[in-house]
Amino acid sequence: MSTVTLPADPEADPRVRAVFDDIRATRKTDYVNNLWRALAFDPALLEQTWADVKRLMAAPTLLDPLTKEMVYIAVSIANACSYCVHSHTAAARAKGMTDAQHAELLAIVALAAKTNHLANGLQLPVDAAFDRGA
Amino acid sequence: MSTVTLPADPEADPRVRAVFDDIRATRKTDYVNNLWRALAFDPALLEQTWADVKRLMAAPTLLDPLTKEMVYIAVSIANACSYCVHSHTAAARAKGMTDAQHAELLAIVALAAKTNHLANGLQLPVDAAFDRGA
Amino acid sequence: MSTVTLPADPEADPRVRAVFDDIRATRKTDYVNNLWRALAFDPALLEQTWADVKRLMAAPTLLDPLTKEMVYIAVSIANACSYCVHSHTAAARAKGMTDAQHAELLAIVALAAKTNHLANGLQLPVDAAFDRGA
Amino acid sequence: MSTVTLPADPEADPRVRAVFDDIRATRKTDYVNNLWRALAFDPALLEQTWADVKRLMAAPTLLDPLTKEMVYIAVSIANACSYCVHSHTAAARAKGMTDAQHAELLAIVALAAKTNHLANGLQLPVDAAFDRGA
Amino acid sequence: MSTVTLPADPEADPRVRAVFDDIRATRKTDYVNNLWRALAFDPALLEQTWADVKRLMAAPTLLDPLTKEMVYIAVSIANACSYCVHSHTAAARAKGMTDAQHAELLAIVALAAKTNHLANGLQLPVDAAFDRGA
Amino acid sequence: MSTVTLPADPEADPRVRAVFDDIRATRKTDYVNNLWRALAFDPALLEQTWADVKRLMAAPTLLDPLTKEMVYIAVSIANACSYCVHSHTAAARAKGMTDAQHAELLAIVALAAKTNHLANGLQLPVDAAFDRGA
Repeated sequence: MSTVTLPADPEADPRVRAVFDDIRATRKTDYVNNLWRALAFDPALLEQTWADVKRLMAAPTLLDPLTKEMVYIAVSIANACSYCVHSHTAAARAKGMTDAQHAELLAIVALAAKTNHLANGLQLPVDAAFDRGA
Repeated sequence: MSTVTLPADPEADPRVRAVFDDIRATRKTDYVNNLWRALAFDPALLEQTWADVKRLMAAPTLLDPLTKEMVYIAVSIANACSYCVHSHTAAARAKGMTDAQHAELLAIVALAAKTNHLANGLQLPVDAAFDRGA
Repeated sequence: MSTVTLPADPEADPRVRAVFDDIRATRKTDYVNNLWRALAFDPALLEQTWADVKRLMAAPTLLDPLTKEMVYIAVSIANACSYCVHSHTAAARAKGMTDAQHAELLAIVALAAKTNHLANGLQLPVDAAFDRGA
Repeated sequence: MSTVTLPADPEADPRVRAVFDDIRATRKTDYVNNLWRALAFDPALLEQTWADVKRLMAAPTLLDPLTKEMVYIAVSIANACSYCVHSHTAAARAKGMTDAQHAELLAIVALAAKTNHLANGLQLPVDAAFDRGA
Repeated sequence: MSTVTLPADPEADPRVRAVFDDIRATRKTDYVNNLWRALAFDPALLEQTWADVKRLMAAPTLLDPLTKEMVYIAVSIANACSYCVHSHTAAARAKGMTDAQHAELLAIVALAAKTNHLANGLQLPVDAAFDRGA
Repeated sequence: MSTVTLPADPEADPRVRAVFDDIRATRKTDYVNNLWRALAFDPALLEQTWADVKRLMAAPTLLDPLTKEMVYIAVSIANACSYCVHSHTAAARAKGMTDAQHAELLAIVALAAKTNHLANGLQLPVDAAFDRGA
């Protein structure tokens, strides 16, 4: 199921073709996953989304690739994005995440959620020591 | 403001005292932040919460300390826990997070939120290639 | 799957029948979707929920019908309600939403999520200029 | 701060006056809290919201009053509604919630959040045994 | 689908076997649901999670068992955890929740969500009367 | 309070100056709000975020400016971003949103949240009629 029609032949549109070619070249794989196939219903949205993902997640940046995927998984879990949890867990695996690292990641995400709910339930004032704004 | 009364002298209770002493010893600081002071209204809840945090966040584990704090910040942002974003950003700073790393962390959290909302708006089927359950 | 038993013949109950008849008459369609079929397990909850939806979404109000559906989709995406994203995207389509409008809606929802997470990560003070309460 | 102007003399409007009178009579108190004062900027929204709250939370229903407040607090924590956590914790206190009950409520909310994030991270299939829809 | 491989024979690991035996004995059933089968990919995470759930949800505590399940369902709905809504609704049914109680629980969760969003939209100041921190 | 240090003289950096100048020119106002001042701690993040906001929210696009702000407010409420609710409600006011439109927007956001929680509590199957993916 989907809220948009996945084009039968998305690469008939040259803008879509160019993005898909770049995805394949950047990721060194022939596989283009469903997020990009669905976004092909609007080439401009596809281009902008891929540009963002490529710049931060596919190119070398300050943080190492596996750390970036783990942060991405953490946000996706908290936002209850089923598709994103699946796709970024697969990406983290492809970048070397072991079962033990995956388990520890889930344990930390779960602990954070636990103390997030405690703190939101207590509604406590933020310690002045934490402020960097002044 | 707070939904619980912060005890005026929490360490009068020996169970609270023991936890606060352990927080100070483990973190090598005299400062005990408001989360623990508020949890002192129920010593059992305080003990259990600190035990969880100590085991995963204060002790050496598989993931490095800064990565763990960044994952914690990511979840806290997505769950809109103001107190937790403040306390764990301060903790990450104490563990060496630079401005540039902080900015990249925020950029990745924001990008994940963006594609989380896109994927939840598209409601697309998960690629079979991502499944590890079989 | 469902957490409630969908009645085999919900319209055997006259209260359910009355609501379903009103849904069909108001929407000018024979189709009653699964949300209402599931809510039929409790006629009072069904009646109250339909009354709310009818008053705001099915009757003419200040905002135009398509704007209302787009706001509804936006909230449903942020709350990760898969059923609601599907049903209200279909409703927006029925009210004339084009592919290009849908794509722009998703782009704005995604951008809002991005800056929501940035602002929650920065924890910045609200500008006094934004206050209307005084 | 607020996104709406709190009327200086909200009860000059007879519709607002009628709702405020009903709030005071129903709750047996002279105090009308800020949510209702803010909603007074739109009398229709005020009337509808109070009617909903009165029917479910102020009148006797199937569930006992304290259980209802605890469920309300739980949802408000998970939705990160600071105002609502404060107001419903105060309401639960007024209905007899002790410190020990409050602590256990927070512990359960925090545990639920923990396993919510684990399950959303694991993305596991729902057991057929849980289905009631068939 | 799942982001982890569900072990074909999880109880071959004695740590997993011990947890599964305790789940069966505590719950007086032969059935071990998918959450535990999935967590078996990391025995330490399985042990800690079960210890938490057993202490609060399976053992007698201050709050009655059905109230605890209803609070758990409420948080799981707000956090959009499909698996958890299913499993804890089934657990609440097993502890005696009727259709009428279930409907009222859903009505209160929905009302809380409604006023959570109103209050977050209004961004109103918390009444000083609600503060217990002083 | 803030998790980053707001530069005392952010426009000493020419990249920040260029963005602030563009914000002032685009919005036809001298005022630069705190989000941009905080993002100035990392000029690249500031540039990218402003580019996104300018393209979708400040330039003419398919949807009218007020509809876009209302969608933005809706997402910000659901994501519990206090800063964003304040800033985009002020922006919607500046674009002509009346009290009555604001009240109706809040009513629809609240109704959507209500049925989101009902549907997530019922966990119902999506109607085949809603699928556009085939």
